[in-house]
Amino acid sequence: MINELLPPKRILMGPGPSDVHPHVLKSMVTPLLGHLDPAFLTIMDETMELLRQVYQTKNKATMAMSGTGSAGMETVFVNLIEPGDKVLIGVNGLFGERMVDVAERCGAEVIQVKAPWGQIIDPQQIKEMLQQHKNIKVVAVVHAETSTGVRQPLEEISHIVHEHEALFVCDMVTSLGGCPTDIDQVGVDAAYSGTQKCLSAPPGLAPVTFSARAVDVMAKRKQKVQSWYLDLSMIQAYWSEDSERFYHHTAPITMIYSLREALRLIVNEGLENVFARHKRYGDSLHAGLEAMGLSLLVEKEHRLSQLTSVNIPEGVDDLAVRKRLLEKYSLEIGGGLGELKGKVWRIGLMGYNARQENVTYMLAALEDVLKEENCNIEHGVALQAAEKLMNK
Amino acid sequence: MINELLPPKRILMGPGPSDVHPHVLKSMVTPLLGHLDPAFLTIMDETMELLRQVYQTKNKATMAMSGTGSAGMETVFVNLIEPGDKVLIGVNGLFGERMVDVAERCGAEVIQVKAPWGQIIDPQQIKEMLQQHKNIKVVAVVHAETSTGVRQPLEEISHIVHEHEALFVCDMVTSLGGCPTDIDQVGVDAAYSGTQKCLSAPPGLAPVTFSARAVDVMAKRKQKVQSWYLDLSMIQAYWSEDSERFYHHTAPITMIYSLREALRLIVNEGLENVFARHKRYGDSLHAGLEAMGLSLLVEKEHRLSQLTSVNIPEGVDDLAVRKRLLEKYSLEIGGGLGELKGKVWRIGLMGYNARQENVTYMLAALEDVLKEENCNIEHGVALQAAEKLMNK
Repeated sequence: MINELLPPKRILMGPGPSDVHPHVLKSMVTPLLGHLDPAFLTIMDETMELLRQVYQTKNKATMAMSGTGSAGMETVFVNLIEPGDKVLIGVNGLFGERMVDVAERCGAEVIQVKAPWGQIIDPQQIKEMLQQHKNIKVVAVVHAETSTGVRQPLEEISHIVHEHEALFVCDMVTSLGGCPTDIDQVGVDAAYSGTQKCLSAPPGLAPVTFSARAVDVMAKRKQKVQSWYLDLSMIQAYWSEDSERFYHHTAPITMIYSLREALRLIVNEGLENVFARHKRYGDSLHAGLEAMGLSLLVEKEHRLSQLTSVNIPEGVDDLAVRKRLLEKYSLEIGGGLGELKGKVWRIGLMGYNARQENVTYMLAALEDVLKEENCNIEHGVALQAAEKLMNK
Repeated sequence: MINELLPPKRILMGPGPSDVHPHVLKSMVTPLLGHLDPAFLTIMDETMELLRQVYQTKNKATMAMSGTGSAGMETVFVNLIEPGDKVLIGVNGLFGERMVDVAERCGAEVIQVKAPWGQIIDPQQIKEMLQQHKNIKVVAVVHAETSTGVRQPLEEISHIVHEHEALFVCDMVTSLGGCPTDIDQVGVDAAYSGTQKCLSAPPGLAPVTFSARAVDVMAKRKQKVQSWYLDLSMIQAYWSEDSERFYHHTAPITMIYSLREALRLIVNEGLENVFARHKRYGDSLHAGLEAMGLSLLVEKEHRLSQLTSVNIPEGVDDLAVRKRLLEKYSLEIGGGLGELKGKVWRIGLMGYNARQENVTYMLAALEDVLKEENCNIEHGVALQAAEKLMNK
């Protein structure tokens, strides 16, 4: 006999999912509409409009794919790439590696530009590769590398990519709603994200956006997209204000309710205020961690506010600390992935969680658990160091 | 300025999505757990166990894919098929056609066995094709054709398929939770479904199940699965009670909460009771519609209880009737798809909606609207004809 659902209440400060905004949770009990109901089509229109605002774009082709962030990645590659196309991918973390895997499964010839995990991709290396290999169709980088906490500057790369007439693709899973994405200003041709990080909705949808150039490239494909489920040539006729709204697959209605509400809250707060809030509490967390004597993986200039990788001090048991935080404080942080496994903790301050309470609770809980683990840190100084930056 | 969500309350009696059970809606405000939290892994284990009960299988590989029912279809084909494989597909409606499209995108050589829309696939034709074409790897049919309301008998086909050592695949999007699926007893090797029909959860997940034989075939693949997002070689290591639960992609936590609750309600009611309830109210709807003088597309023997195609009487305006039902009664029914466009209405009695109240309301509303449209029907007899079968 399985009982009604009553899980423990966690505080989700790992790399995602992060806590869902209570208003967003509330929106999810809204009874369903049919996926072709005029009232639902209006909700889709509103969602597209809000999504454009949060992505900072006027791109018509801006919609939510019916899968998690990784389905967004797959959407971009299966639709832009045909077998034999050359793709240049910046790899400085797990999600760059994932792009390589996904692009290869589409039949792409992948060329990689690498950087050590925790550092940015060097635009000059992108330039060299574009000069060396002719006819590269797509250049892709991760804007906010969830596996490291690096924020990749995009402007210079975008300029180089467009000089070589390639399409510029960005993974924005952890950046959307947490820092400026500036799709139009930067000149990003395709981007994808998830709902479960800085948007503070549950995981399950992948917001994507495509420039007119990218839409044009898709329209000129010679072969069918290998994924029926993610084929934008059909999905664009459903997710579009001025089409006949052809049925493709049954849209995940409740998830779209949650996305609409999440975006609405962000737009109501004001994008600039939301970004400033992430920066304020990110800075204050960083100050607190450093005051405690901990070091951060990423140098200050390229650190994300919404996701911070902390180097695990020598001799400290990674799993024991995370387990203790979960059991004693019901607080989730993330471990390292891939080559950073066992080497870093990843702390998220995303969306609704980018607040004073979360910074204070995290620093207090971590200080206590590290003390229990006999880790040699400074005591009683983290909160003050953090608080100094909270009211700036 | 976009307001808080407050859509009209509909009664969803089309081909899906159908109304979500109120307890399932309630489960969706549960705060998130992390996708690797031990408490969430327990919820996944419970969901798999419940899913096996509702699918009527002991298949270890039984899980929920992170997309809607169509993603379930794609999951089955991308994982079982490699380029050049021969696939035999029964096509007697839109979802058979969709399987052809999906299988071809996987590089399959597709052979079709067709039947008119509204009729079943003839097992003898499957047999002939299997004899004619050697080395067919997969035979696929739609168990409950959502575009027509036909219920395909599976036993004989399964026997034939296994005599020829092929894998038997079934689309169970509209059957799961509405009528017996009997995976193990019938010998289905792979099936997929959705959450938004007879399970009475919102759309967004695709429950799938694979026999040991199918798992074995997948394990022996020569090429990578073309979809990273749906690659079971990785996903099975996350959705499995006895693996290390490797992270693949962030699971749609809230949707899994809703699926667990939906399945729990079905198992608590008792599978046989749930099937009997669908049959009772399906029969009673059919009796009411026929008493009114309307004719049904599918002959009695092969009719689904949960989805009924009604032939639109000559001279009656399809769209006008559906629009009026929606506007006057907030009642959604479906139109015809493909070659049945404008020729049938599709009425769903799925899951939570397979109840006396829904049958009565549907018959009363339809009778009234057809009267307004000057359609020549019998008046004042439908409800009585329906009620006779309600308490049987």
